[in-house]
Amino acid sequence: MDDNSSSSEIVGKEEESVEKIFESKEVPPWQKQLTLRAFLVSFVLSILFTFIVMKLNLTTGIIPSLNVSAGLLGFFFLKIWSKFMEKSGILRQPFTRQENTVVQTCVVASSGIAFSGFGSYIFGMSEAIAKTSTEANDAQNIKNPALTWMIGFLFVVSFLGLLSVVPLRKIMIIDFRLMYPSGTATAHLINSFHTPQGAKLAKKKVRTLGKFFSFSFLWGFFQWFFTAGDGCGFVEFPTFGLKAYQNKFFFDFSATYVGVGMICPYLINVSLLVGAILSWGIMWPLIEKRKGDWYSATLSPSSLHGIQGYRVFIAIAMILGDGLYNFIKVLGSTLLGLYQQFRNRNTGSGLPIGSSSSPSNTPTVSLSYDDERRTRLFLKDKIPTWVAISGYTVLAIISAATLPHIFHPLKWYYIVVMYIFAPILAFCNAYGCGLTDWSLVSTYGKLAIFIIGAWAGSSHGGVLAGLAACGVMMNIVSTASDLSQDFKTGYMTLASPRSMFVSQVIGTAIGCVVSPCVFWIFYKAFPDLGTIGSQYPAPNATIFRGIAIMGVEGFSSLPKHCLTLCYVFFIAAAAINGLRDIVGPKWAKFIPIPMAMAIPFYLGAYFTIDMCVGSLILFVWETLDKAKADAFGPAVASGLICGDGIWTLPSSILALAGIKPPICMKFLSRKTNARVDTFLGS
Amino acid sequence: MDDNSSSSEIVGKEEESVEKIFESKEVPPWQKQLTLRAFLVSFVLSILFTFIVMKLNLTTGIIPSLNVSAGLLGFFFLKIWSKFMEKSGILRQPFTRQENTVVQTCVVASSGIAFSGFGSYIFGMSEAIAKTSTEANDAQNIKNPALTWMIGFLFVVSFLGLLSVVPLRKIMIIDFRLMYPSGTATAHLINSFHTPQGAKLAKKKVRTLGKFFSFSFLWGFFQWFFTAGDGCGFVEFPTFGLKAYQNKFFFDFSATYVGVGMICPYLINVSLLVGAILSWGIMWPLIEKRKGDWYSATLSPSSLHGIQGYRVFIAIAMILGDGLYNFIKVLGSTLLGLYQQFRNRNTGSGLPIGSSSSPSNTPTVSLSYDDERRTRLFLKDKIPTWVAISGYTVLAIISAATLPHIFHPLKWYYIVVMYIFAPILAFCNAYGCGLTDWSLVSTYGKLAIFIIGAWAGSSHGGVLAGLAACGVMMNIVSTASDLSQDFKTGYMTLASPRSMFVSQVIGTAIGCVVSPCVFWIFYKAFPDLGTIGSQYPAPNATIFRGIAIMGVEGFSSLPKHCLTLCYVFFIAAAAINGLRDIVGPKWAKFIPIPMAMAIPFYLGAYFTIDMCVGSLILFVWETLDKAKADAFGPAVASGLICGDGIWTLPSSILALAGIKPPICMKFLSRKTNARVDTFLGS
Repeated sequence: MDDNSSSSEIVGKEEESVEKIFESKEVPPWQKQLTLRAFLVSFVLSILFTFIVMKLNLTTGIIPSLNVSAGLLGFFFLKIWSKFMEKSGILRQPFTRQENTVVQTCVVASSGIAFSGFGSYIFGMSEAIAKTSTEANDAQNIKNPALTWMIGFLFVVSFLGLLSVVPLRKIMIIDFRLMYPSGTATAHLINSFHTPQGAKLAKKKVRTLGKFFSFSFLWGFFQWFFTAGDGCGFVEFPTFGLKAYQNKFFFDFSATYVGVGMICPYLINVSLLVGAILSWGIMWPLIEKRKGDWYSATLSPSSLHGIQGYRVFIAIAMILGDGLYNFIKVLGSTLLGLYQQFRNRNTGSGLPIGSSSSPSNTPTVSLSYDDERRTRLFLKDKIPTWVAISGYTVLAIISAATLPHIFHPLKWYYIVVMYIFAPILAFCNAYGCGLTDWSLVSTYGKLAIFIIGAWAGSSHGGVLAGLAACGVMMNIVSTASDLSQDFKTGYMTLASPRSMFVSQVIGTAIGCVVSPCVFWIFYKAFPDLGTIGSQYPAPNATIFRGIAIMGVEGFSSLPKHCLTLCYVFFIAAAAINGLRDIVGPKWAKFIPIPMAMAIPFYLGAYFTIDMCVGSLILFVWETLDKAKADAFGPAVASGLICGDGIWTLPSSILALAGIKPPICMKFLSRKTNARVDTFLGS
Repeated sequence: MDDNSSSSEIVGKEEESVEKIFESKEVPPWQKQLTLRAFLVSFVLSILFTFIVMKLNLTTGIIPSLNVSAGLLGFFFLKIWSKFMEKSGILRQPFTRQENTVVQTCVVASSGIAFSGFGSYIFGMSEAIAKTSTEANDAQNIKNPALTWMIGFLFVVSFLGLLSVVPLRKIMIIDFRLMYPSGTATAHLINSFHTPQGAKLAKKKVRTLGKFFSFSFLWGFFQWFFTAGDGCGFVEFPTFGLKAYQNKFFFDFSATYVGVGMICPYLINVSLLVGAILSWGIMWPLIEKRKGDWYSATLSPSSLHGIQGYRVFIAIAMILGDGLYNFIKVLGSTLLGLYQQFRNRNTGSGLPIGSSSSPSNTPTVSLSYDDERRTRLFLKDKIPTWVAISGYTVLAIISAATLPHIFHPLKWYYIVVMYIFAPILAFCNAYGCGLTDWSLVSTYGKLAIFIIGAWAGSSHGGVLAGLAACGVMMNIVSTASDLSQDFKTGYMTLASPRSMFVSQVIGTAIGCVVSPCVFWIFYKAFPDLGTIGSQYPAPNATIFRGIAIMGVEGFSSLPKHCLTLCYVFFIAAAAINGLRDIVGPKWAKFIPIPMAMAIPFYLGAYFTIDMCVGSLILFVWETLDKAKADAFGPAVASGLICGDGIWTLPSSILALAGIKPPICMKFLSRKTNARVDTFLGS
């Protein structure tokens, strides 16, 4: 659920002037902020986070904000590096917070690539996902993953978003003074690391993270030994009994999702649980009773015409209902916000884009010392707007020329149209994200699927065209919001916009190479990728392809009553959101979020249980010692997520090398066990 | 290993006068110390501890000192009771430390009965154990457990020890001023509970105990669901792989033995581990390679003529070697101690027994305020010696008349001879225990097996006679040392010797009824009791019967080279003990204890792993926070032991009711798993 990457860090009020504390420290020029060591550390962290993000993408698609972990680990590595150099006597430049921001930006940019589409549109094009449905699984609607085209595609589309956001940065950060909660939180984190007292706390946090990282990694390793076959291991533990297990209610001992549950707000976890109970606890068992009537009893359990169809399409209906509601809402508040901004500041200069801005037309409202100093430094190093605009145009032309060679159904004029509208959508998303921390990337992507898919039509590979268009759109829109967040972080840590931009370029380039390679390792190491019930079901791939099929083929192929149910859930999702807005935040925190409810519809309750365990741990901890839980909770959660995530690296290497675990931990009913014992005894 | 019930509580020096603190509190007369509520609480706790002790007895025979748990729980229940009464306005008498001591004494006396023989000599008489060997398994050497004779037997033999120790109490406590470390520790505990500050700490400890009790109980309950068949569940978890599991190296997730490991000194745990590695890691695999040469390959794995014989008899040899060494050592120091006591105090009054003592001939050395006050109160309520002596004689006559009817091979004159020598041995044991906290009960028992078994001879049911004689002897000797400890506790808490005596009588009576009943539940609920590899292998039953067979039949039946190995280990055990004494305590703590090493020889390493985990937890805890670990470690351990122990109550009820767990958690090798999957798929 990429719409949900809101940071759980509390964005505290700055009680005292931060920049006063840092006053004595000189801000290095932007070239000096870009050190070799920073990029080496970024590269290592990029690989680490790409693995983690890829794993999350392919298991449930729920990815929490990893900014805190990236910040902690970046600080840790650079600190160790500079300590080591200092001891060796060859430290030429002290470790600054600007450098830390550069690392943060680079890692976010590169792992953002992994985040954007491997679990959804790219894998949704593959044969593995296509064959789960009988529609649109002809050759022209299938494109299996391959390293070459994935890397090429990413290089062609990923830098456009970066260029589209450059001219906007001053408007968003200086003129509109948008909050960007995640970016602000990251900046607070980095600033706090570099004060003497903060460094001490950071050290403690890093140690906590390290402890839980090791624990989580070793736990993953230990679990591995017991997974000799299908249905073996801790991930199959029928914690609440076999009956509950069949309905996907069990605790699967995943350290990752316990950590994710600790980071996600309580409301998300509760929503997931409500969704799981509603779907797997009530609805699916009821629908399964109609087997033979509502859908053919002879279908395979993974067919979209059977029970699986209800699961996928009802989930899609809810996601679209929620997405559409929020799209309209955020768009409305964006427009309203813009209108107010311009009415309040009737200087008549129109959109104050890029180079037209000079220190003289900064707002006349009195600024705090911090803001003044930050604004001065933020505006010092400019990136000329003509660079951005001409770069965007050149890249768009290259893109329109090459993409049709990669995806034959995607005509060049689709691409041109998209690139004309994309900057507007990118601006909307960056602005909405700045206001609400809520990025609507996947909603824009789904919109592109529908529009381009329908335009191409079913007989001309509309499904593939839709998915490819989704990729193009998501890349631009997500980059726009991510990098605006980064600019906010840079603004608050006095990092130069130029060094940020270079760091983003380098990070994106790293991501374009590393992400496909990591995905490729998963794809080769786990042949059952995308199979429901396997270790990596890649739920978003099925959902995105389902949306594309629905856009191209219409609703005719859905099983009986499924469309009616979809309408009900679509409207319900919008209505619940409306209700949440009407009752106000005081009561809204007791109303579940439809988007979160929809995810277990398809996947089952198991990861929900994990996340609720995480929530519970945090809740108990907060009850016992609120201060400590707030300070160290994110570090513990990051450790759990990173340790288990990085274990996928050796685990996929083991799988690639053909080394299989020795033991199977199996769970049998008493009756089956008796049969097996007789069989083994004979 | 009942020779090892030393308390791990640190017997701290009394820095300030304890009795000064309690000066204002009136000591109630002895009749008032014996309240109804105290005995009700004792009864409930007796049942609880009998379950725990029985479980420990039947799984490994390693039983740590449960004094701390009994103290904590006794305090907890009485405190709740009196709080409740106080609120209801019907509290007639405040809760005193004397009352607490009465509960403690009663519980110790009653669970001591469970401790003494159900896992060893009583179950060793049964057919289940007899049929593991081809020797002496005829009808006259077998007596299956039955409620009637067990209760009768216990009533006849259990009160003798109690009476034999009464005349000695003044010598041990007042004249010799023996330490009785466990008794002293318990007294410190009880005293500390009743100071205002101590009560606060005690409350915290009780809460900790409660938390871990619940956790341990729920964990036991959770585990139960996964044990649908043989070889199912967490107890079969091949933590270190299947190869290690076959050699009994695995962590079986037993909360009990993790707790036991936390209470037992590090040296014991290390000794166990060394013994496990030596036997199951090195020796048994080597001997198994000689299968067909050293022993017949066609034998069942549980036959004492095969590999099992090596395990049992080498373990017996080590236990006897260690026991004999310590017997001689403790006897020597007892005699030396006595000699010095009399030489130093040449008042010429001879043995100052019972009624002949008056306040006037208490030692003239200056006493502290505490000791003076305690001595005065201890000597106030006397128990006339003639009551003890005549009671002993009457009971001995009853015993000699009735026991031959229960065990036909046990002639009345064997019993008479034993009862003549028993008080001397009881005195030796009580004195040795007072000096070293080391009770040699099972060594005296084994001595009785050898002597009476050989006297009766193989053709006259010598095995059964030996085991029965062992029971008679162990009951007297263990009661003597246990009750001396209790008297020390009573002395230090100003409890009257009379109330202690009554409490002991009542406790023993409770034990004589409750213990057989609890054993009976186990016996009926778990039909595979005593089978090696089952949940309750009752190792001491096999070992005690093995000793009896060896005593009666000689060594002819042992497998090849087994006798040679037995000699080696017998001598090695004595030699290691000698070495420990020679090098002094500084180095002795690095030399393993042979008695502890011998236990895993027969059982395997699994419980050793549990205990080492417990040790490790305590070690880490002590490293992090020594003060807290020392204060709360015993409470945590007690909670773990009690919770899991009490789970055996519902678990045996479930077994008796025929309710079987629903799931089997099975561990298969990859190859077997593939076969099973094919079988289940077809």
